[in-house]
Amino acid sequence: AESAHESSSGKKYASYTIFKAKAALTVYPVLPKFCTIGSGNLKMEKNGVVMLVFWPAIATRKYDWEKRQYFALSPTEVGSLVSLGSSDSCEFFHDPSMKSSSEGQIKKSLAIAPINDQSGYFANLNVVNNLNKTNDRLSIAITKAEFAVLRTACSYVLPHIMGWDQVISPEKQTTPKSAVNRPHPDFEWSR
Amino acid sequence: AESAHESSSGKKYASYTIFKAKAALTVYPVLPKFCTIGSGNLKMEKNGVVMLVFWPAIATRKYDWEKRQYFALSPTEVGSLVSLGSSDSCEFFHDPSMKSSSEGQIKKSLAIAPINDQSGYFANLNVVNNLNKTNDRLSIAITKAEFAVLRTACSYVLPHIMGWDQVISPEKQTTPKSAVNRPHPDFEWSR
Amino acid sequence: AESAHESSSGKKYASYTIFKAKAALTVYPVLPKFCTIGSGNLKMEKNGVVMLVFWPAIATRKYDWEKRQYFALSPTEVGSLVSLGSSDSCEFFHDPSMKSSSEGQIKKSLAIAPINDQSGYFANLNVVNNLNKTNDRLSIAITKAEFAVLRTACSYVLPHIMGWDQVISPEKQTTPKSAVNRPHPDFEWSR
Amino acid sequence: AESAHESSSGKKYASYTIFKAKAALTVYPVLPKFCTIGSGNLKMEKNGVVMLVFWPAIATRKYDWEKRQYFALSPTEVGSLVSLGSSDSCEFFHDPSMKSSSEGQIKKSLAIAPINDQSGYFANLNVVNNLNKTNDRLSIAITKAEFAVLRTACSYVLPHIMGWDQVISPEKQTTPKSAVNRPHPDFEWSR
Repeated sequence: AESAHESSSGKKYASYTIFKAKAALTVYPVLPKFCTIGSGNLKMEKNGVVMLVFWPAIATRKYDWEKRQYFALSPTEVGSLVSLGSSDSCEFFHDPSMKSSSEGQIKKSLAIAPINDQSGYFANLNVVNNLNKTNDRLSIAITKAEFAVLRTACSYVLPHIMGWDQVISPEKQTTPKSAVNRPHPDFEWSR
Repeated sequence: AESAHESSSGKKYASYTIFKAKAALTVYPVLPKFCTIGSGNLKMEKNGVVMLVFWPAIATRKYDWEKRQYFALSPTEVGSLVSLGSSDSCEFFHDPSMKSSSEGQIKKSLAIAPINDQSGYFANLNVVNNLNKTNDRLSIAITKAEFAVLRTACSYVLPHIMGWDQVISPEKQTTPKSAVNRPHPDFEWSR
Repeated sequence: AESAHESSSGKKYASYTIFKAKAALTVYPVLPKFCTIGSGNLKMEKNGVVMLVFWPAIATRKYDWEKRQYFALSPTEVGSLVSLGSSDSCEFFHDPSMKSSSEGQIKKSLAIAPINDQSGYFANLNVVNNLNKTNDRLSIAITKAEFAVLRTACSYVLPHIMGWDQVISPEKQTTPKSAVNRPHPDFEWSR
Repeated sequence: AESAHESSSGKKYASYTIFKAKAALTVYPVLPKFCTIGSGNLKMEKNGVVMLVFWPAIATRKYDWEKRQYFALSPTEVGSLVSLGSSDSCEFFHDPSMKSSSEGQIKKSLAIAPINDQSGYFANLNVVNNLNKTNDRLSIAITKAEFAVLRTACSYVLPHIMGWDQVISPEKQTTPKSAVNRPHPDFEWSR
């Protein structure tokens, strides 16, 4: 293992993980995708997400990555997370098979609720898979300090998963007024 | 559609849109403009804005981009938005024809007011056009989570629409004390 | 006037100005200075500042740039500004001639105090010059929205005037532990 | 001493130091380390830290750098620091020899507690070294303004010491979903 070479053109991976008695939670950002439009310009096609990966403990300080469950937070869900008051809770529902033939067969819900003594939050992920007849529940306690890390890091990446850092990059300085394409209402549900 | 090429020199477009029953709201940043001054240096000539585009619903999940109305927030108006308390409201008045022969013929006002149950804000845009004898009203509810996205993204772009990211860019390191030009008092009204 | 060329290598200037009945206030960041140390490396020699320029009104919407007075906020003074509560006040004292033969002959003080109805702050600059037998007072009201702009923009530039953006620039990735030079206690007063 | 050359490829050092009657505190960020994984890509191997250096006063405005003591804050400890309420306190325990033969022989603890009149915080560092039979205590008062600088600067660097700025760098745009390696539970303790 060595430190990064300055001339490297490779991709870089980094995540934030908290390990607790019954599960671990790994969090990392995923960038938006852009597609080419007329005149060599680019338009955001798909927003980025903040990916949450829950994976269960199988023994003391051993966790099973094979049994991981993903939950991808959209920009608006990240907004909900970073604005959560110390006694607030929130819940998100996802259907990863939306608009496919198996729509409605897999249901994911993530609930974040404050711990009674205000020392942090519980995050509860529930995945119901009617195809496999399985129901996975993964739960992890997030301390105030850990939540502050998530809040700070998610506030930092939010403009990036929205693609706004690309718009304001000075090398690509422009007035997007005339060129912005009509956003499509399906956009919000098609992630 | 493909992801962005690393070597692309094109412009990039990204916006944040919320779709509701009666209208949609699209938001994106517009960079400031710089002009050359002596010795190949550049000075901000016109600040950037955060552009709000309201467009009406014409059927279930169908929106009419042709009937859109723009409202461009100045840095100070963005400051007002990002510092809005949960029970605060604000209102902005714009005359897009200021200093032209049709000054005062078109009046735009944007009011942002809290929803009674503190679940978010209502944004109401009113455009009175005396030339066309029209009066367009567009209204949209913004949830707390959506407003948190706007607050975070607008706080992020504020220094950029003010041009401060250009001043502190280390490749252009300088002490601007002697070279800063006298700001003109009209500047504030001439956007 | 034209927009910035992408290939320009010139310096860029941008500031934020508020114009009121009796005075104007112009604010802009000034970068820190680095000096070379052993092995081609660089060390911050002098921190940057947030420069405040007060200039008086001499007629309706006319301001006299020749009569401007500067007040340079250090990182800690910027910290005081950005953490100011809505009913808090603060005051800073500067001697621009410190450690010269005229030390103590010019005294600058800046007081920031809340407006009674909590609609913003008053900033009062007082410059006593015993050499010229002058005493200049400049005062300006800052609305909540304008203060939010200053708070957001100053929070943004604070790590830059501290030079921390240079330390974490990935092209210059390093562990500064062994190379960091002993900060000098005079540093704090020598700006 | 001169300002930084634009073409310099050297490393840059900058820190923030507060000097008080009995001790000084110097703070600076240290970047994470990346190692190469398959296909020329890079993965964060070791997170960065915010380094705190306490050094004692030995006379009026003289401080002894040779007697300095380090305390490196992990991302989660930085999260604890930046979310500290005005009447909250926190305490961290480090063993720099963890997993070596002298494990448990050196114990460092850092306690941050509010000053009674809410004018800031006391930071108390205690280093017990059983090998040398020494016990060093260093204490410093941090004003609200100085703490605001630390909070703002630490919030700024937090995503960088987590390596997230590298993940979202647009030149390295990617979906890390498939390539992210399994975080190891020891990771949290091995810094």
